This record gives sequence, C-alpha cells and structure tokens, in this order.
Amino acid sequence: MRELDNSVVDSIRASFEKQNFLLTFGAKLTHVSLGHVEIEVPVTNPALNQHNFAHAALTFAVGDTAAGYAAQSYLTAGSDVLTVELKVNYLAPAIGQKLRGIGKVVRPGGRITVVVAEVFASDDDALTQVALLQGTMLPLAK
Amino acid sequence: MRELDNSVVDSIRASFEKQNFLLTFGAKLTHVSLGHVEIEVPVTNPALNQHNFAHAALTFAVGDTAAGYAAQSYLTAGSDVLTVELKVNYLAPAIGQKLRGIGKVVRPGGRITVVVAEVFASDDDALTQVALLQGTMLPLAK
Amino acid sequence: MRELDNSVVDSIRASFEKQNFLLTFGAKLTHVSLGHVEIEVPVTNPALNQHNFAHAALTFAVGDTAAGYAAQSYLTAGSDVLTVELKVNYLAPAIGQKLRGIGKVVRPGGRITVVVAEVFASDDDALTQVALLQGTMLPLAK
Amino acid sequence: MRELDNSVVDSIRASFEKQNFLLTFGAKLTHVSLGHVEIEVPVTNPALNQHNFAHAALTFAVGDTAAGYAAQSYLTAGSDVLTVELKVNYLAPAIGQKLRGIGKVVRPGGRITVVVAEVFASDDDALTQVALLQGTMLPLAK
Repeated sequence: MRELDNSVVDSIRASFEKQNFLLTFGAKLTHVSLGHVEIEVPVTNPALNQHNFAHAALTFAVGDTAAGYAAQSYLTAGSDVLTVELKVNYLAPAIGQKLRGIGKVVRPGGRITVVVAEVFASDDDALTQVALLQGTMLPLAK
Repeated sequence: MRELDNSVVDSIRASFEKQNFLLTFGAKLTHVSLGHVEIEVPVTNPALNQHNFAHAALTFAVGDTAAGYAAQSYLTAGSDVLTVELKVNYLAPAIGQKLRGIGKVVRPGGRITVVVAEVFASDDDALTQVALLQGTMLPLAK
Repeated sequence: MRELDNSVVDSIRASFEKQNFLLTFGAKLTHVSLGHVEIEVPVTNPALNQHNFAHAALTFAVGDTAAGYAAQSYLTAGSDVLTVELKVNYLAPAIGQKLRGIGKVVRPGGRITVVVAEVFASDDDALTQVALLQGTMLPLAK
Repeated sequence: MRELDNSVVDSIRASFEKQNFLLTFGAKLTHVSLGHVEIEVPVTNPALNQHNFAHAALTFAVGDTAAGYAAQSYLTAGSDVLTVELKVNYLAPAIGQKLRGIGKVVRPGGRITVVVAEVFASDDDALTQVALLQGTMLPLAK
C-alpha cells in the first residue's frame, strides 16, 4: 500500500474544517488513509426529521463527504474533488446517538474515481447500517 | 387532474413543520399540488461547503424533500412516504442566495412511486439548475 | 440551436453500425440531432425475459445507447463517448412490438456530460413509457 | 445461515431457463445460495460493442440477473422478483473471453430488497472487475 503523505492528510483536514455545513452538525473526521476516510457526527435536535430520526440528508452528507475525501486521498496536497453524482439506498431508519460514514475508493482514476460509502447509526448497545452509497468523484489535481 | 384535498395539503405542511433539519436552514414549502411540490431555502452561513457554495447535502435535502412530498400528495391525509433510494447528478456549483427544489412524480404506485427533482440556485439576476435527482419512494398509506 | 454537422451524424451512424450487440436485435438509429438521439428495436423472440416481455437489459441498452450518442453529438466527428454510470428506474413491463429510446443531454461538458433517456414500448394502439434513465457520459474528443 | 430449500433453487433455475435474452448469449447460472447468485456468459461476436469489447448492456444484464435471483433466493419457490431500479458504474472495458456476475443481497425485506452486484471479465490469465451495481428489487412472494 502506498503510504499517505502527511501533507495530504493535513490538506484533507484543512478542507474539512472549512465545511460549515458539517461543522454546524458537529461532524468530525475520524480516519484518513489511502482510499479510506471515516466521519462521525452526533445526532442532535437540529438534525432530526419528522420522525425524530437523523435526517436522510445528514446520512447522505456523511457518506458523500467520507467518499469524497477517500477519493481526494489519492491526490497531492491542495488538490480538490467534486461529487459528480451519488446514489444512496436507505437500509433502515437512522436511530442512534451518532452516525458514522465510511467512504472507500473502488477505482481511482485520473479523470474520474468510483467510490462507495456505508453509513451506520450507533447507540450504546447497537450498530445498524442505515445507508449504502455508490457514486463518481471528479478529481481536480493541483 | 384529480383535485388535491385540503386535508392532504395540511397533512404535508404539518409533516414539513416537524422536520427540524429543514427548519434549521430556514426551508419553506412554497407549492403543493398533485404530484408536484416545491421547496425553497436561503443559503446562509451554516449551509456552506469549503468553497463557500451551498453544500451538496443541502441541495440533496431540498430535492429529496420536494420529491418525497410530491409522492405523498397521491396519498390520503396522515399517510407517510419513505425514500427508498435517490440518485443525484450535480450540474453546477450552487452559487446564489437561495435554492429551489421542484419535485415531481413520474409514476405513482401502490407499492413504489418513481420521482424526479430539479434543484435551482437563484440570485437577483440569475437562475441556474444545479442538480437533477431521480429515485424511488415507498408510500405508507394511512 | 447549433447546427449539427453532417460529419458528426455520419460518425455516429458509423459507430452505431459497429455495435454487434444492437444489430443482433435489429436496432435502428432513427433520429440524430444536437443533444437528442432516438433508437428503435423490434421485440423479437431472442429479446424476451421469463415473462415474455422485452428483457430489462434490452430496455437499458436502448436507453444507454441513445443517451451516449446524444452526448457524442456535441463532439467533433470521430470522437467517442464512454458510459461512466447509468441509473434506470423501470416504470412498467415492456409489452409491445418495439422499444423506442429517446436520449437527451441535460448538461454537456468537456470532462463529463449528464444525460437522461426515456424508453417506450409501443404497440399498434398503445405507447407506454417503460423506463427512465439518468447518468453520466465521458466525452473522448478526437 | 438459513438453509436454501431445493425447491427454491429449482424454481430459480426454471425461471432462468425461460430468459431467452440470456440464453441467446449462452449465459449459465453457476451458483445459487441464500442471497448470493452467480452467472457466467461467454463473450461472443453478437455480444460486442463498437470497440469489440463485451457490450455494456450485457454487463448490465449479467449483474441485474445475478442480483435479482439473489433477492429471489429469500422467497419461497414459485415467487418472483422485479427490478425496481439499478445503477451501474463501469470500472474498466469488458475485455475477456467471459463475464461473471456475482449478485448479493445487502438487505432483504418484505416490501423491497437492496442488492449489489459485481461483474468481472476474465481471460486465461487475467480477471478484471468491470462493473459495480447497486439497486432495489421488488419481491413478489407467491
């Protein structure tokens, strides 16, 4: 496995810290390695849907962001990635104290990168996969 | 066209008002008719991504919600709808003062309903389509 | 509307005539204009599924090909297009004597082009939309 | 793991043998277990695209069918499954003597079942993943 340069990790962390939307909900970047990024977010009041579960769009955000930075981990520091498209299947209601998104690269590429993400809801005593995502990222190498 | 009962519109509005996630961003339900729902949300600081555009997850939320309630408009008051899956293509950066999502039903059904949504970013002098969504809703008739 | 050069139409027709898979089923290219391509295929015995309807993969093929050539119509003659990804919702069983696919460009681009396609099944006295597709094409300009 | 009844396997095999479209290309059902089905098809002349690779629609067919029967393996004999929707990302050109599709159930359900499929092209000395699919099946229990 190609080692991930510190400058790349720093660059991903710096980008993450500029995402107001995610910070609004208290999201944290909890893991960055080559082609694999994880994000966690607590499920607080402003994040709820009409059934008092985490809103589907927050689940989507967590999966999208983890997958996007997983794609970006293949690029040099200061590069960027755009979500071309993303498809999500919801598997279960997002009931729990926090959400964890795990993004992975299926096929990196110079023109496009194919990614997947899994999102889990967790409680003290339960962990449930709530979504599966598959999509395409556009690498914008620096 | 089948007329839309007031009780259905009221039921959709009541559900919308319970969606903390959308209220957090100041979203409003601006149109409800049979198979056609529109939502608007101002693009404020907490909604921004690392490029200072509206976050892709907010775009997704607006499209998902408009499409979901469009599906719900075919059901009796008090019914509900779940997003089975949704695919989004991003067409342009979401630059503007507000986002508008237009959700439409392509094929209503008892077991599943197929929907699309378009999301636009608007400024004083410009309107740009920023996303196209296509997906599947699960009607939970009361 | 930008006029479509004959050399582009000829180039698309020449590419189509090399697609054994489509010729195997007797598909024909019935319309080519800028960002809009149509394909028709008769529903014959080898194309049937276990219910004696046209197979979902033939429906997919017709939509994919129409959408791909719609994207290619924006490029110079001799260029090519690859399907990055495509999502299809099936709307009704493909019952009829032939299928017609209508592919359209939603957003052309130098790096990627976003497309949609509708597929219809037709009989002497009925026309039914059987599928809606949305996806991403990769232009390989000559 | 719940054991798979012979009557279910027989029912899936009988359904497969009625799919003219797949038989046209010489497809074979090579594995059936609970939530996991595999299909193989030789890449012959009628299956080629304009680049002389296996056509994307054949890749799609193999993935779709494997995933559909994987969903059906959870139902009683004589039941059926419809593809609600399916999304495919193409990862590499389908160059090889045969295609193998591996369909798996991510989440079985009474109303809908979420599936994925991987499709590989293989040669004497190489095996390449050419596609990843994710979608939704509608179980029609007998």
